Amino acid sequence: MFTEKLLKQIDFIKEIDKVKYIQRKTRLFNSNRHENDAEHSWHLALMAIVLSEHSNEAIDILKVIKMVLIHDIVEIDAGDTFIYDTQKDHQNTKDERLAANRIFGMLPEEQSKEFIMIWEEFEAGETKEAKFAKAMDRLEPLLQNSSNNGGTWEEYGVKYEKVYEKKSVIKEGSNVIWSYAEKLIDDSVESGILKK
Amino acid sequence: MFTEKLLKQIDFIKEIDKVKYIQRKTRLFNSNRHENDAEHSWHLALMAIVLSEHSNEAIDILKVIKMVLIHDIVEIDAGDTFIYDTQKDHQNTKDERLAANRIFGMLPEEQSKEFIMIWEEFEAGETKEAKFAKAMDRLEPLLQNSSNNGGTWEEYGVKYEKVYEKKSVIKEGSNVIWSYAEKLIDDSVESGILKK
Repeated sequence: MFTEKLLKQIDFIKEIDKVKYIQRKTRLFNSNRHENDAEHSWHLALMAIVLSEHSNEAIDILKVIKMVLIHDIVEIDAGDTFIYDTQKDHQNTKDERLAANRIFGMLPEEQSKEFIMIWEEFEAGETKEAKFAKAMDRLEPLLQNSSNNGGTWEEYGVKYEKVYEKKSVIKEGSNVIWSYAEKLIDDSVESGILKK
Repeated sequence: MFTEKLLKQIDFIKEIDKVKYIQRKTRLFNSNRHENDAEHSWHLALMAIVLSEHSNEAIDILKVIKMVLIHDIVEIDAGDTFIYDTQKDHQNTKDERLAANRIFGMLPEEQSKEFIMIWEEFEAGETKEAKFAKAMDRLEPLLQNSSNNGGTWEEYGVKYEKVYEKKSVIKEGSNVIWSYAEKLIDDSVESGILKK
C-alpha cells in the first residue's frame, strides 16, 4: 500500500505543473511564440545529454540533468527574471530562496534537502556540473535569438558587449561549445541582428 | 575548435524544438489548456526522479530519464496518438519507426544508435526501466483527468473498464504507485467523473 511519503511526492508533482505557465522572454526557434519554463527545462536536459562529451571536465550527467530540470521551479513563486534585466540581480534573490524552501519543502525530508542542495549548487555555478548546466542555459536562448532575427536582443535593445559578457559563461562549461557560440555571436553581428 | 559532430548535434537540438508544438489530448492540472509533448516529457522526467524509490526493481534512473525525455520526439513526424484511440494501435507504428530513423539519425552515429535503442526499449516495455517509464507515462494523465472533472474520459466517453485496463500497466513498474492509482480510479468512479 502507498504511504504518506508518496502522497507528499504526488502533491509536489501537482504543484510543479505551474512551471508550464511561466513565460520566458525568449521565443521558440523561428517563431513568435514565447517559450515556457517547462519546455525550456526539457530542452536543456536533452541538450545536456547530447552535448555532454564537450564538457571541459568529466561530469556526473545525472546531476546536470537534475539541475536543469529543476532550476526554474522557484519561478513558480519568484517569477522569471530576464537575464538582461538591469534592475534585478538574478543570483539567489531572497524571493527565490523562499520559493525553494516552500516548493522543494513539499517533498519528503531527504528529497527536499537534495533538491535544495542541487538548486543551490546550480545557482552558485562553481562545480563542474553547475558550469556545464549553466552553459546549456546560456546556449539555448543564443540559438533561439539567432534564429529569430535577433529575438530579445532586438526587442530589448541588448548590445553585443552585454551578450558577449553573459554568454562567455559557456566557456567555463565547455571550450568547444564556446568556440561555436562565439562564432554564432560574431555571425549575428555580421548579419546585423546584433548591434555593437 | 568545434567540429562537424557538434554541428550535427546542434541541428538535432534545433529540430526537436518542434516537440513543443505537439498538442496532447490531456489538459494541464485544473485547467482547460492542452499540454504539449515537451511539457509532458519534462514532467515525466521529474516524476521518475521523485518516484524512483517506488519502482518494483532497482532501476537505472538515467536510462529512465532518457526514455521519457525522448519518447515523444517521433511525434514530430508521426503525430500524437491518443491512448484511447480505437482505430490506431500505438505500438511501434511504421510511421513512428521512420520518424525515429530520420530524427535520431540527425545525430552522430553512436548517439543516433543509442537514442533509437532507448526509444525501442521504451516502446517494447519489457525491461524494468521501460516498465517504470511507462508507469510514469500512464500516471500523469490519470492525475490530470482526476483533477479536471474527468478530462479526456468525459470528453471522449471513455469508461472505467478501459481506463482500468490501460492504467494497470502502472503495476508492472510499481505496485506502490499502482495501489495509489487504483484508489484514484475508484474515487473517480465514486465521485461520478468516471462512468462504469
